[in-house]
Amino acid sequence: MPLDPQVLDYYRSHQTDFLEGLKDLLRIPSISALSEHKADVLEAANFLLSDLNAMGLEGVRLVEGSGHPLVYGEWLNAPGKPTLLIYGHYDVQPPEPLDEWVSPPFDPTVRGDNIYARGAVDDKGQTWILLKALEGHLKADGRLPINVKVLIEGEEEVDGGMIAAYVEERGKDLGADAALICDTEMFAPGLPTITTGLRGIIYSEIEVQGARTDLHSGLYGGAAPNPLQAMAEILCGLKDSEGRILVPGVYEAVAEPSDAEKEAWASLPFDEGEMLANEVGSTALTGEPGRTALERMWSRPTLEVHGIRGGFVGEGAKTVIPAKAVAKVSMRLVPDMDAAATAQALVDRVKALEPAGCRVSTRILAASAASLTPTDDPFVVKAAAALQESFGKPTVYIRSGGSIPVVGLFQRFAGIPSVLMGFGLPDDNLHAPNEKFHIPNLYAGIEAVGRYLALLGEDS
Amino acid sequence: MPLDPQVLDYYRSHQTDFLEGLKDLLRIPSISALSEHKADVLEAANFLLSDLNAMGLEGVRLVEGSGHPLVYGEWLNAPGKPTLLIYGHYDVQPPEPLDEWVSPPFDPTVRGDNIYARGAVDDKGQTWILLKALEGHLKADGRLPINVKVLIEGEEEVDGGMIAAYVEERGKDLGADAALICDTEMFAPGLPTITTGLRGIIYSEIEVQGARTDLHSGLYGGAAPNPLQAMAEILCGLKDSEGRILVPGVYEAVAEPSDAEKEAWASLPFDEGEMLANEVGSTALTGEPGRTALERMWSRPTLEVHGIRGGFVGEGAKTVIPAKAVAKVSMRLVPDMDAAATAQALVDRVKALEPAGCRVSTRILAASAASLTPTDDPFVVKAAAALQESFGKPTVYIRSGGSIPVVGLFQRFAGIPSVLMGFGLPDDNLHAPNEKFHIPNLYAGIEAVGRYLALLGEDS
Repeated sequence: MPLDPQVLDYYRSHQTDFLEGLKDLLRIPSISALSEHKADVLEAANFLLSDLNAMGLEGVRLVEGSGHPLVYGEWLNAPGKPTLLIYGHYDVQPPEPLDEWVSPPFDPTVRGDNIYARGAVDDKGQTWILLKALEGHLKADGRLPINVKVLIEGEEEVDGGMIAAYVEERGKDLGADAALICDTEMFAPGLPTITTGLRGIIYSEIEVQGARTDLHSGLYGGAAPNPLQAMAEILCGLKDSEGRILVPGVYEAVAEPSDAEKEAWASLPFDEGEMLANEVGSTALTGEPGRTALERMWSRPTLEVHGIRGGFVGEGAKTVIPAKAVAKVSMRLVPDMDAAATAQALVDRVKALEPAGCRVSTRILAASAASLTPTDDPFVVKAAAALQESFGKPTVYIRSGGSIPVVGLFQRFAGIPSVLMGFGLPDDNLHAPNEKFHIPNLYAGIEAVGRYLALLGEDS
Repeated sequence: MPLDPQVLDYYRSHQTDFLEGLKDLLRIPSISALSEHKADVLEAANFLLSDLNAMGLEGVRLVEGSGHPLVYGEWLNAPGKPTLLIYGHYDVQPPEPLDEWVSPPFDPTVRGDNIYARGAVDDKGQTWILLKALEGHLKADGRLPINVKVLIEGEEEVDGGMIAAYVEERGKDLGADAALICDTEMFAPGLPTITTGLRGIIYSEIEVQGARTDLHSGLYGGAAPNPLQAMAEILCGLKDSEGRILVPGVYEAVAEPSDAEKEAWASLPFDEGEMLANEVGSTALTGEPGRTALERMWSRPTLEVHGIRGGFVGEGAKTVIPAKAVAKVSMRLVPDMDAAATAQALVDRVKALEPAGCRVSTRILAASAASLTPTDDPFVVKAAAALQESFGKPTVYIRSGGSIPVVGLFQRFAGIPSVLMGFGLPDDNLHAPNEKFHIPNLYAGIEAVGRYLALLGEDS
């Protein structure tokens, strides 16, 4: 039990303060995708800046550039000890559809053991775990067990341009031995979890242009091309009705998970029927034939359409043939797919599908590869031990279907592994209405990270 | 030349007043599809009520009911003369997309020979022609050459429920010999035109429900159904990539146009290349193979999607799998298709296409059959003569791909033919941004309708 009792006492006696502080952060609508929220994003950055200063980190500053700023702070007064790069993000997804929220997305509300707000779990609540774990050591013990660099970005939900530039520019000079990221989830309530694999992502906008201007479907229906119908044809040409992606070559580079990994997944407390009933609630799970749901979500590429703009979607009947339609389409990539090559294959496929009378173009908004961290990495092994001690159960290793592009950046440019400790729960409504965070996980997470820092400081 | 010179003089000396009065009507955003514009729709009805009173019609009133009111007025002081039912509509389509309008849709603006505003041609401008033609006779001559009933509806762009109930309830007791409608267009500038055939319409909303709530595409992509992708599959199952409708039975009832009608169409000043270049502006015209563009637009059924709601269409990247998607889909019907049977066939087809993991349902918002008026009807023959005299060219008979359901109502319940004199132009941007009306057609239209009333009063 390496954690200083005074630190543990600090964590336990400050739970109310931690929750109130998190609420203040959640009240800031720091939606990075929407330019009208630029000032709010900056406000969230400054809020964290104050917090890092207050706990006693050094060199605290905003790293500014063309996008939303990075928040940086460090504590490098443990010579001979490892340096951990602590990463989180303070930006959030747009909250729409607003009318499905029980309480407003930026009015954090406690109901039962949960706190509801946009960003509660992704990622303000989990970023807060990291900061409060540091605060406990610094305030109760006057020092950290190891060296730490804190780097919090404000563009995780968009293109992550600022942190990409920051990491690419510094490379090995980033000066850290590993990164700690809390932006994933526990496989099941109470089950300590480390995520070893993440899918990459390509995000695109496909535009179909038909006529020069919107036309009346009575007068021109039967002669003018309809970009919405054309978009439907393109989407059906990108993925078949069973869930197979039709972009040529997309499955060729895919690395299958090892037999050991497949066996571990099979032993997880997971049942497709329960997932269908409790999490999804549709008439059936769907996807690529011949694969389990975990395989489809964790180790297979997927393609999804997120929205189609064009024409009339208001109340009642408008008989327009829109001049233009735009679809937002993403792909998730798995090891060893090349992000750039896959993006190009998508662009080429859409072009090849160009329907009669229409012009198509595809804009790639983001492209990042998948990542995989070895489970025998010493930073992972100690994280698993810290989690086990805090939750009283052996830690499980899973993958996630989601994407955290910075993991690939840290690997590729700084040459460091990322440890993904996650404290979200499967029903936390990530990116959806009524996003929440399980408050006991906030407190247990702070203790687990506090223990991890102590463990990392032990032997080095 | 049956038109009283004093009436003609009134028309010519009041052109500025007519234009200013039309502008006042166009300023009212009477969008019948949007409930938040209910008060505006009523304001437009009251505006017309005042106008009918001011010109000296009798029995002027609003016919109220569950929907937007009808505006009614009559003048029945010409015993032994025919009674003409004069029809127009004061409601308009929604103006979106707003950013494509050069001047705001409800700030009527004259540029060159045109007046730009939502409703300029459809149908406030053309309704204004009818009213000002009556006004000229009443003000300059103190009487009308025939009996007239004016009936102006406020639901033409939605379901037309009020006028349908009104006509169905009265049947033959509507007490008119024919209807005059100005809600169509001239085949080419300067070419007087009567539209003898209109397509019917089915307007539907197709809803696809997948998961219970919006889901994150990283975490659930590959397992949860995507209603937008499912909608794309349904749309591709309703119409093939060449433009053939895939709803079973849809082509079976279709009546082909007569050889005489086909010959007349072939002699019209129409060139598909010019239509492509001047009106549509896409890379090609599209539609059912083996048919000319005029056939496809006038005498063949079509199916169009007007908008797809669901997911995220804002700025940037949001990785959501929406719980639900809704598409607005219409079909245009031709003689002798049955509207109710075709609507049911559409509903059945969508159900048969239900994708895995999703529930689909189809709501029919409107269903009306096509109509065809004989060219040798005496009311049509005199209309053609009045147009020829006003425009100095022989009148051509065409069909329109659009739908004016009231024509079918007048035929079916009141047993009267409708005369469709149209003064719009092919580039008037009906239902689209920058809708306009050619001001010389406003003035010539008033004279043509004035002459038509005089001609109808001559021999009876």
